[in-house]
Amino acid sequence: MYPAKFENLIAELHKLPGIGVKSAERMAFSILNWTEEDKNALITALKDIRSLEYCSECGNLTETSPCSICGNEQRNHNLICVVETPKDLFAIEQLGEFNGVYHVLGGTINVKKGIMPDDLNITQLLNRISDDTEEIILALDPTPEGELTSEYISRLINGKASVSRLAYGIPLGGKLDYTDQRTLTRALEGRTRLK
Amino acid sequence: MYPAKFENLIAELHKLPGIGVKSAERMAFSILNWTEEDKNALITALKDIRSLEYCSECGNLTETSPCSICGNEQRNHNLICVVETPKDLFAIEQLGEFNGVYHVLGGTINVKKGIMPDDLNITQLLNRISDDTEEIILALDPTPEGELTSEYISRLINGKASVSRLAYGIPLGGKLDYTDQRTLTRALEGRTRLK
Repeated sequence: MYPAKFENLIAELHKLPGIGVKSAERMAFSILNWTEEDKNALITALKDIRSLEYCSECGNLTETSPCSICGNEQRNHNLICVVETPKDLFAIEQLGEFNGVYHVLGGTINVKKGIMPDDLNITQLLNRISDDTEEIILALDPTPEGELTSEYISRLINGKASVSRLAYGIPLGGKLDYTDQRTLTRALEGRTRLK
Repeated sequence: MYPAKFENLIAELHKLPGIGVKSAERMAFSILNWTEEDKNALITALKDIRSLEYCSECGNLTETSPCSICGNEQRNHNLICVVETPKDLFAIEQLGEFNGVYHVLGGTINVKKGIMPDDLNITQLLNRISDDTEEIILALDPTPEGELTSEYISRLINGKASVSRLAYGIPLGGKLDYTDQRTLTRALEGRTRLK
């Protein structure tokens, strides 16, 4: 019913995550009414990301490899924080608290989805570990897959470096009686002694 | 934090209706992992809609003007259904019940938003009315703006053609006690005598 070219744009937008046909239709109509300048800006932005690459050192998304974090001499290269995605790296980096470097795995081991250790940047992580390495911080999601991956990496490192993971517990501002049982169990197990 | 080109794509996607920064970020990461072929398909689709135009006759979205409906001799050109948008035209056309032609206004009169009669395809509608015109069906949304616009157009036509509007009432499958008061009032006013 709509012109084929318009149907085509709806179909393409429908491929985006979380975008149903109705949303895609709404987006297509919106784009149709954009100025030529705005349309071109979107097209250019889509073309431009082709030149992005993953840092040869840490796997972070970057315009030039090594990335600005790996190339920064001011940071502690002996403190490596392991994350699943560049998104997680971004979340930690935004805190402005961490002065080490990162290692992006690109996911977690997920046997069901066929993601095996070889599909992740694990070997590269092991290659980065030297006698000077102070600590490997595993900052993976507290999901079964994240925990399995943490466990797996921890065994591979096998004492070649000190390994830690993020603390699990009740989120700040959270309420104890609204906290799910698994989190509460972890919070109890990980209790901290007061002085 | 993300590479500038990536931030740029997020910003562009964020301009789409209903897309917050978090969704735009998720979409950008998704596109990043698309194949070159899929990325190109989206870029091409965006470029292609540039050649779309609005039908010189009825204002519908089309690849060639006049559109396939206006150019169809099998349809009754003396029966004109007036809609706000190509989307509404599509909704009616999908019924497969209407064999007349359409007229797309491009919106409704909305003084608050500064949309005045001159901003809509109203003059073109009046120009299409001839002595042969059987009926003008006003199929605008039952909103205050839609009703005001219907009223306005009806006055302009001023008896030069028969004018009707869609029936208002309880939607099929709806429940009377869940129907809002305004709809129920309209349903009562528009009651149909049984034979």
